[in-house]
Amino acid sequence: MLQVPRLLDLLGVFVFAVSGALAAGRKQLDLLGVLVLATVTAVGGGTLRDVLLDRHPVAWLADPTYLLVIALAAAATVVWTRTRRPPWYAILVADALGLALFAVMGAQIAEQAGVRSLAGISVLGTMTGVAGGALRDVLSAEIPLVLRRGNLYASAAIAGTLAYGVLERLGVPSSVAALVGMAIVAGVRFASIRWRLSLPTYAVPHPTDEYPAPGRE
Amino acid sequence: MLQVPRLLDLLGVFVFAVSGALAAGRKQLDLLGVLVLATVTAVGGGTLRDVLLDRHPVAWLADPTYLLVIALAAAATVVWTRTRRPPWYAILVADALGLALFAVMGAQIAEQAGVRSLAGISVLGTMTGVAGGALRDVLSAEIPLVLRRGNLYASAAIAGTLAYGVLERLGVPSSVAALVGMAIVAGVRFASIRWRLSLPTYAVPHPTDEYPAPGRE
Amino acid sequence: MLQVPRLLDLLGVFVFAVSGALAAGRKQLDLLGVLVLATVTAVGGGTLRDVLLDRHPVAWLADPTYLLVIALAAAATVVWTRTRRPPWYAILVADALGLALFAVMGAQIAEQAGVRSLAGISVLGTMTGVAGGALRDVLSAEIPLVLRRGNLYASAAIAGTLAYGVLERLGVPSSVAALVGMAIVAGVRFASIRWRLSLPTYAVPHPTDEYPAPGRE
Repeated sequence: MLQVPRLLDLLGVFVFAVSGALAAGRKQLDLLGVLVLATVTAVGGGTLRDVLLDRHPVAWLADPTYLLVIALAAAATVVWTRTRRPPWYAILVADALGLALFAVMGAQIAEQAGVRSLAGISVLGTMTGVAGGALRDVLSAEIPLVLRRGNLYASAAIAGTLAYGVLERLGVPSSVAALVGMAIVAGVRFASIRWRLSLPTYAVPHPTDEYPAPGRE
Repeated sequence: MLQVPRLLDLLGVFVFAVSGALAAGRKQLDLLGVLVLATVTAVGGGTLRDVLLDRHPVAWLADPTYLLVIALAAAATVVWTRTRRPPWYAILVADALGLALFAVMGAQIAEQAGVRSLAGISVLGTMTGVAGGALRDVLSAEIPLVLRRGNLYASAAIAGTLAYGVLERLGVPSSVAALVGMAIVAGVRFASIRWRLSLPTYAVPHPTDEYPAPGRE
Repeated sequence: MLQVPRLLDLLGVFVFAVSGALAAGRKQLDLLGVLVLATVTAVGGGTLRDVLLDRHPVAWLADPTYLLVIALAAAATVVWTRTRRPPWYAILVADALGLALFAVMGAQIAEQAGVRSLAGISVLGTMTGVAGGALRDVLSAEIPLVLRRGNLYASAAIAGTLAYGVLERLGVPSSVAALVGMAIVAGVRFASIRWRLSLPTYAVPHPTDEYPAPGRE
């Protein structure tokens, strides 16, 4: 079993918190809003996973280091952007690595908590990686970016967590499967940015007055 | 105690997943968004109920059949609407039956989990039926349809779950009470569509500058 | 340990439910929407805290008095505003007192549930006070007021819960620390309304096309 080093985990939290703080800045929230969006983005996915799995205590309640790292990330973001442009490209790369880490780690945690099916661990792993950002967008009153057409993000997490689960079922050692899974998440993500890959969108017209529907009355 | 046949439960999941997939299509989300909205609509209400009741493991984590049915429903919706108009009327009817099933089943599960009050089981039953759709709307950055003026939907679920609880307290066998409760949910729903019944809306002006309020500062 | 009298707790629920009902009126929801927004505003924060802390059963499921008080508050709000302007100033004061009560009470509950860190109890206390209102705003498809520039609200709760925790660690009896904490929440809140205090906002430009970012693709 791969023991994700604590330092890596906190680095992932830092990166996701920066992404949340920047989102707050784009919405011109106040400093408290910055802190809340940073927190939600950084720990929202893992918290949702833990609540669904009944894993308690939730990590950031048991260990205040998480909240400290998030506060530092939010402060660093605010101070940095006073004088400089955010290093968008570096953030993009760091975010992809954070996604890879959180998704595969989330899948492993789901397994340890007793989830057996490949679909179950992939959904929980992907949720660990993307639900924080989705919650950030909901609090910003926007349709979550992860649901809209864009470069592959959740799809990368799905591919990597599925690969992790399949390899493990084939007898590959868990730590090797995890590393391959993370490489696939990051690789798919980078490839989708480089070559502007995206999933097709799905469009259906609104029901007309003649045809009432559950979604329109 | 009525044992809801597994097939009926999965049919309800299928119908709600179709409703979520169609909502994704109206928002022109990508294929992943279709899958996520289908899932959230289909299992969101039951999952919220289970988390509030501390019932674990959550059904769709323990049994991957749920996720499979949802994926099939999403795929069928996308393929069908490529060439044909969604069968709005059939969906409307199926959705009402799904609502009836989920609401009364949710009330029964709340009872089994130890909720004693009529209000408590009615709230949890109604939540089982409508929270998935509300979450679908929140993820679509819209005010949940269920809170806005429209044909009776949550009100139908409230009426049916209350009837179920009252009948049971009067000594009616639980399975009979459940069938009557479901008939009331579906009946109120169909009647409200047929005769365009709706609850009155409530309007209050925004506070003015002279009168600050918690909701406006 | 301060035992918050049950009457006070229910008064807090009543006040928050009124705030939720008024928000529903501003959005012109139907009567069911009024009930749902009143409920969510009144018990949302405490419920989220309890789910995160794995405290079960959730208060309003174990004791139907909560739902009854909420229904009364919603009905009273609708009836009152038919003929009169809402008493905005009284609501503002009552809301500040409710915030003080819920935040410090939430911090105490977090302590009892085993949260050790000052940051942890402050976050959970503040969440108890403000998450219901944030959820009300999310269901209204708006950015939560608590994240936007305005008079101090969550900041007041943070200050009061931190003061409570620090005083307790200094050996002050818990009931005295709680009273001081509540006074600070209400005091900061009143001062911020009186002198129009607010936190600075944080603004960052959107990334341009040349600089892709996790938040824009």
